Amino acid sequence: MKLLEERIRKDGKVFPGDILKVDSFLNHQVDIKLMDEIGKEFYRLFKDCDPTKILTIEASGIAIGQAASRYFGFIPVVYAKKGDAANLDSDLYSAKERSYTRGVDYMVNVSKQYLSPEDRVLILDDFLANGEAMAALINICEQAGAKVLGCGSVICKTYQPGEKRIKDMGYKVEVLARVKAMHDDGQIEFED
Amino acid sequence: MKLLEERIRKDGKVFPGDILKVDSFLNHQVDIKLMDEIGKEFYRLFKDCDPTKILTIEASGIAIGQAASRYFGFIPVVYAKKGDAANLDSDLYSAKERSYTRGVDYMVNVSKQYLSPEDRVLILDDFLANGEAMAALINICEQAGAKVLGCGSVICKTYQPGEKRIKDMGYKVEVLARVKAMHDDGQIEFED
Repeated sequence: MKLLEERIRKDGKVFPGDILKVDSFLNHQVDIKLMDEIGKEFYRLFKDCDPTKILTIEASGIAIGQAASRYFGFIPVVYAKKGDAANLDSDLYSAKERSYTRGVDYMVNVSKQYLSPEDRVLILDDFLANGEAMAALINICEQAGAKVLGCGSVICKTYQPGEKRIKDMGYKVEVLARVKAMHDDGQIEFED
Repeated sequence: MKLLEERIRKDGKVFPGDILKVDSFLNHQVDIKLMDEIGKEFYRLFKDCDPTKILTIEASGIAIGQAASRYFGFIPVVYAKKGDAANLDSDLYSAKERSYTRGVDYMVNVSKQYLSPEDRVLILDDFLANGEAMAALINICEQAGAKVLGCGSVICKTYQPGEKRIKDMGYKVEVLARVKAMHDDGQIEFED
């Protein structure tokens, strides 16, 4: 997605530890027009799947899910909540995620009320690095008996194992901006 | 807002401790069409203010800010992040909030990059109870020198002090659903 790559080149910031910060337009300050374009592109890529629900994860996935839902006929967006295992009650599906940027484990939780075997789920998130969040969301769908139709990520660092990991699990993966390298001088390279 | 009151009556759940759960349509599973109507209503109430930015707080404020932004000409949405004081860096505006539902203190943080004295800010959030989150967001705008044009809340429990607290600070407050009482049998009463 050219528009997105240009924006990442212009406003993305490379930090030590292989961190790409896009919080000026994606996950702290949000460019809602760009978000609409992101939603439209996910619709183009997944429209044949006919999902009944979008599943994402707080906080940065919410705007992505909302933008996509408007193109998919306003299907409900469920966002998983992050929390400690100690706070879990029995009405939740839960899976563990190791955060790439923070290096800590989270529990990812979805109320059992909002996923069922009748659901056909499109999973969307902002970043695909090691695939931890995506794998946790897939795991939650499997617990619920819901069918995962595919997984979409706004940005993927293609030199990290996440994309292959999710594809190896048998799921369709679509990525809007494929980062193949980031350099200390701030330069960001995309796959063609 | 009649549509919202009807939805709260139908799908809202009253829990011990004066908790109103609306997570089937507002803050876990999100009804994006209802969210659009909420955004439209905030536009009707605040359109004369001419904001340059919407400020809200993760996670449940994001969908509200995004829906409203589309009516305000796609102005940027900044969402404050919750975090420990220990994690704060010097590039943040921070204020303390005491969570009503969880009974713990959070730091509420916004990067200094995304609020400035040029900004005219509309603050939006899901619940107004004691006004802690709203007051923290106002405090952050004051630190940034940004002008707060008004505060909008989707739901307000009018028997709690938040609305008066924010109005007493000199700010316009608009609420879409005014809950005046909740009963043990699950009944929810609204102000006329």
